[in-house]
Amino acid sequence: MHDVKAILFDTFGTVVDWRSSVIAEMNAFGEQRGITGDWPGFADAWRAAYHPSMDRVRKGELPWTILDVLHRASLDKLLPQFGVTGLSEAELDHLNRIWHRLTPWPDSVAGLARLKQKYIIGPLSNGNVALLVNLAKHSAIPWDVVFGSEISRHFKPDPEVYLGACTMLGLQPAQVMMAAAHNHDLKAAQALGLKTAFFARPTEYGPKQNKDFAPDGDWTVVAKDIEDLATQMGA
Amino acid sequence: MHDVKAILFDTFGTVVDWRSSVIAEMNAFGEQRGITGDWPGFADAWRAAYHPSMDRVRKGELPWTILDVLHRASLDKLLPQFGVTGLSEAELDHLNRIWHRLTPWPDSVAGLARLKQKYIIGPLSNGNVALLVNLAKHSAIPWDVVFGSEISRHFKPDPEVYLGACTMLGLQPAQVMMAAAHNHDLKAAQALGLKTAFFARPTEYGPKQNKDFAPDGDWTVVAKDIEDLATQMGA
Repeated sequence: MHDVKAILFDTFGTVVDWRSSVIAEMNAFGEQRGITGDWPGFADAWRAAYHPSMDRVRKGELPWTILDVLHRASLDKLLPQFGVTGLSEAELDHLNRIWHRLTPWPDSVAGLARLKQKYIIGPLSNGNVALLVNLAKHSAIPWDVVFGSEISRHFKPDPEVYLGACTMLGLQPAQVMMAAAHNHDLKAAQALGLKTAFFARPTEYGPKQNKDFAPDGDWTVVAKDIEDLATQMGA
Repeated sequence: MHDVKAILFDTFGTVVDWRSSVIAEMNAFGEQRGITGDWPGFADAWRAAYHPSMDRVRKGELPWTILDVLHRASLDKLLPQFGVTGLSEAELDHLNRIWHRLTPWPDSVAGLARLKQKYIIGPLSNGNVALLVNLAKHSAIPWDVVFGSEISRHFKPDPEVYLGACTMLGLQPAQVMMAAAHNHDLKAAQALGLKTAFFARPTEYGPKQNKDFAPDGDWTVVAKDIEDLATQMGA
């Protein structure tokens, strides 16, 4: 534990609350345009397209593609299904960039600011660099380094993502801790020798959430949230 | 000018004072070990090996190699020439990491903190990610993103470095400003459509400095230092 020099964070769901953010932005957009819709259902459908879209890249059905572009393809397909048509390119781009404006969980920024005093902190996310940098600027998330997916040109849980970040930091896997609200992310990191930290985000997926309420592996640290992780890590 | 969203900084010489830092560390190391030496000459010789070592990679004589490894090869060659022999691996590694502990110029951190309020800021350096992240941690340099050379696997002034950073930021070259105390760096950036900012660091190379005392191109901004750049950029 005392060997940990860097703590890398999954981002969507772990640091930021994507579902509430997407719903709030769609509510605001709908009010402005006089459109009503099932925005919680829309948020869930957009997120549900996330893993299948990355899997198409991972399986080689698509060439390397950043998440902004995958999000946009899903958006273009979903909007008509939710009764939204006739948007301008600027409006579509604005909606696609909701993912650049997601709101952190209440403990995230304060906990990260504490951890930054003692550790190198950064996102290790399937988001692309611009998305992650804009997200951090939007909410003053104090990252030291930003590992977007195009740096390794792989999506988690591919080993290249985790090991590539360790190599770039000049650290051994055992000196790097992966922090996530998702057990599967930690499982992949642990298998490669990284330390792991879990904290639950029980409302991430809204009322239909059916997983990740509790740790299901032998993680290095189990915390309540990022503030508690900072406390447990002596920061 | 009002289109600029990100300002990327050359690092060695532009943000940090490598020469004074190397000399000070070698003085301290020499005192501890009872060795005297021509440390200014040593600092100059180590830095003089910088461009030739990167050129070996650029020309394909060496496979892709990060700067930490190039620095170490130069160090191993130079130490005996300056009368230093018999160091342990830990001591050699400590000396090689002087480049992770370089001191910023007096205006750097304050100027960058101001610019960060209005722009995305990051290093665009031939240094590797670990070197740049450790350097920032060492002096609280508040980067938003860290573009080390292994992200593009190219060294400046290769176009891939500048254009790769713009692409990762999701910005057009005209929305990105390259800031450097070196005219040749700005020339390469300007040719690709980036905005440019010059400020001189007239003591970077010590008493033998023979260039970069003044702008020699039509740069977007010419400033006194990074604080003045912040003022001119409205930050």
